[in-house]
Amino acid sequence: MHRVIQLKECDRVWINVNLATFDPAMSHPYGSRHRCALGIHKGKIARIEPMSAVTATRLPYDVTDGHNGWLTPGLIDCHTHLVFGGHRAQEFELRLKGVPYEQIAAQGGGILATARATRVRSKEQLIKSTLPRLKALTAEGVTLVEIKSGYGLNLVDEIKMLEVAKELHNRHTIKIISTLLVASTLPPEFAGRTDEYVDMICQQLIPEVADKKLAEAVDIHCENAAFTMAHRDKIFQSAIDNGLPTKCHTEQFSENGGASLAAHMNALSCDHLQHISEQGIADMAESGSIAVLLPGSYYFMRCQTPPPVELLRHYQVPIALATDTNPGTSPLASIRMMMNMGCIFFQLTPAEALAGVTINAARALGIADHYGSLEEDKAADFCLWDIDHPNELAYQLGHCPLQQRVIDGQIIDTSH
Amino acid sequence: MHRVIQLKECDRVWINVNLATFDPAMSHPYGSRHRCALGIHKGKIARIEPMSAVTATRLPYDVTDGHNGWLTPGLIDCHTHLVFGGHRAQEFELRLKGVPYEQIAAQGGGILATARATRVRSKEQLIKSTLPRLKALTAEGVTLVEIKSGYGLNLVDEIKMLEVAKELHNRHTIKIISTLLVASTLPPEFAGRTDEYVDMICQQLIPEVADKKLAEAVDIHCENAAFTMAHRDKIFQSAIDNGLPTKCHTEQFSENGGASLAAHMNALSCDHLQHISEQGIADMAESGSIAVLLPGSYYFMRCQTPPPVELLRHYQVPIALATDTNPGTSPLASIRMMMNMGCIFFQLTPAEALAGVTINAARALGIADHYGSLEEDKAADFCLWDIDHPNELAYQLGHCPLQQRVIDGQIIDTSH
Ligand SMILES: [Zn+2]
Ligand SMILES: [Zn+2]
Repeated sequence: MHRVIQLKECDRVWINVNLATFDPAMSHPYGSRHRCALGIHKGKIARIEPMSAVTATRLPYDVTDGHNGWLTPGLIDCHTHLVFGGHRAQEFELRLKGVPYEQIAAQGGGILATARATRVRSKEQLIKSTLPRLKALTAEGVTLVEIKSGYGLNLVDEIKMLEVAKELHNRHTIKIISTLLVASTLPPEFAGRTDEYVDMICQQLIPEVADKKLAEAVDIHCENAAFTMAHRDKIFQSAIDNGLPTKCHTEQFSENGGASLAAHMNALSCDHLQHISEQGIADMAESGSIAVLLPGSYYFMRCQTPPPVELLRHYQVPIALATDTNPGTSPLASIRMMMNMGCIFFQLTPAEALAGVTINAARALGIADHYGSLEEDKAADFCLWDIDHPNELAYQLGHCPLQQRVIDGQIIDTSH
Repeated sequence: MHRVIQLKECDRVWINVNLATFDPAMSHPYGSRHRCALGIHKGKIARIEPMSAVTATRLPYDVTDGHNGWLTPGLIDCHTHLVFGGHRAQEFELRLKGVPYEQIAAQGGGILATARATRVRSKEQLIKSTLPRLKALTAEGVTLVEIKSGYGLNLVDEIKMLEVAKELHNRHTIKIISTLLVASTLPPEFAGRTDEYVDMICQQLIPEVADKKLAEAVDIHCENAAFTMAHRDKIFQSAIDNGLPTKCHTEQFSENGGASLAAHMNALSCDHLQHISEQGIADMAESGSIAVLLPGSYYFMRCQTPPPVELLRHYQVPIALATDTNPGTSPLASIRMMMNMGCIFFQLTPAEALAGVTINAARALGIADHYGSLEEDKAADFCLWDIDHPNELAYQLGHCPLQQRVIDGQIIDTSH
């Protein structure tokens, strides 16, 4: 049990702020607390009090007046493929000119184009091309982002991608959680040798990544027909054997049972889920897996079947939202656009959209003990917004009302 | 016939730039010219030459090296309702919680809520609330924006809105073209007296706006059932009699013949057009009216019927794209999002999307003689982008690759 820290003892206090706490203990959808003071100490939220109890003599030297704006938890983008080489604008243009996807793939397009472009680039080149996308996210209030590997498709280049993510993390303007993504496609050098490729994943790639602590989880892609459920099962087991939690891409284009498999493996999250069955949802509820919905790729791929949000609510499966930023199906590095699209396409409420990029995104990453809500003892990662109500964050786009972005109690960005 | 101006005589020259000229004389969809120099003189584009013909001794003192980036015409947002009081985030939230629109309207929501909020605000207050939205547009490369009135609904407040637009124009960071928007709804004080309201529009409002030169056009809303086609016809005629060109909101939710009426009045543009008939398109082609498509409100209102783009192409009706920024149906102040949505929802090509916010947007405003393309003697309003190809501008969102925004030959914004 921690000693109660008084405001006076805090390193800095934000006064005259309203809080959208997303404290799970509160029944209000935003966990709202009006007219408060929030103090931080040693990088954590140390004290939240109503302003009515605050007097000048009880405050430390460093005080920020929020002028009745709102604090939210720092936004978390819990599913991205932010590190990649090249882009696929040309492919986008061809598709809109009516060239069939098969022809684009035959001309070397698709994920293998990105894999080639990623393999030939150095770590420095990948860092340089990722930074503008990271900056786009931080400018909207993102304080923590998950980055998946998955365009290397071999030992050396998967590790290179994860090292790039680590380097970006060490720059300290945003926290990065890395995920090893496997089985999204079979690389051409393993054509006809899927079993061998899966063995390489299970016996070399996952152990080495675990050993070097290069990733916090393994994402097993459960869509590509090159792999069977038995392959995926084996990979899940390898991740677990190597002490890494799991997650998966599944049920995006058809019901394929990936969510149930993942739930049986106690996966942190199942992502996409447009075609998930009720049984799959029940299994997720049972295992406590989080539903990560990705409106960007839904939109960009012109999908028509939204995920079954009503059923997810019914089974009380928490819903997270993420950008899925990637060059092929979601070249859209904007977490606020995803909040808006979550409302428009999936009929989420603005409160659900904001919970989806805070507390539920933290749950999807297995870090909700320390992140995702404004509670005493959690990391002091939060945003100050010039808004009347937090529903505005999902409602309008274009102008971003972010005033301050705070990480570990340090003010990293201000809008002026 | 102008004297040919040499690069040496220019006020400034951009070297090592590729141009997406959108010069209508060129058959290439972007009007591309590679590796050029572009010189400006007295606020106009004075000279475009291939770099192969450029030597240091032929350059003036002020030179900007574009490092092989691309110049496009300054982006033009040709349909917005950017000036308004308040916002409708609460209404958005209610709608997503399942409250029916009728109930929201009965509780005082909808356009009349915005009208009330706009009427009670001073010009200074409206300027202050519009600036962040304007800034969002300029940050994406918009150099000229159309702003409609239409939330005043009476003489005093419509004129107030147009004066706000003029004030914003005079700040010189963006050019603003004002449009008097009428007949979007009947204000409550005229309930049951539609004829009298239309007389007020025709005999007081339009003449006074024309007399004070407060608007460059009149937009006659052709959707609201409170008004008949006879009313609209009368308003069109009044605009013409007062020397103002016309445009209209029409065919958004159903085919209503507004486009044909507008075409017979030689309207500059017909906007929305999701349900326009082939006859309507033929009439627009005949009159030279531009089709302004508005993917933002299409998206935000969850529409399912896209405008008939194939028929518009067939009849060679030029297509413009705009944000339609407004608090009720498109709180989305992002021209690049509209380019992307134009491709995703309406299957425009990236070249058509970029033409839609440059040359065709200029046509929709009746200013294509001076704006919308990179041609000698046109205004030196353009953007320098850090891209490999102009198709990237419609393809990705989040990071904005704008390097410089130039108005009348002056560098207004740079990204560093
Ligand atoms: Zn993904
Ligand atoms: Zn409009």
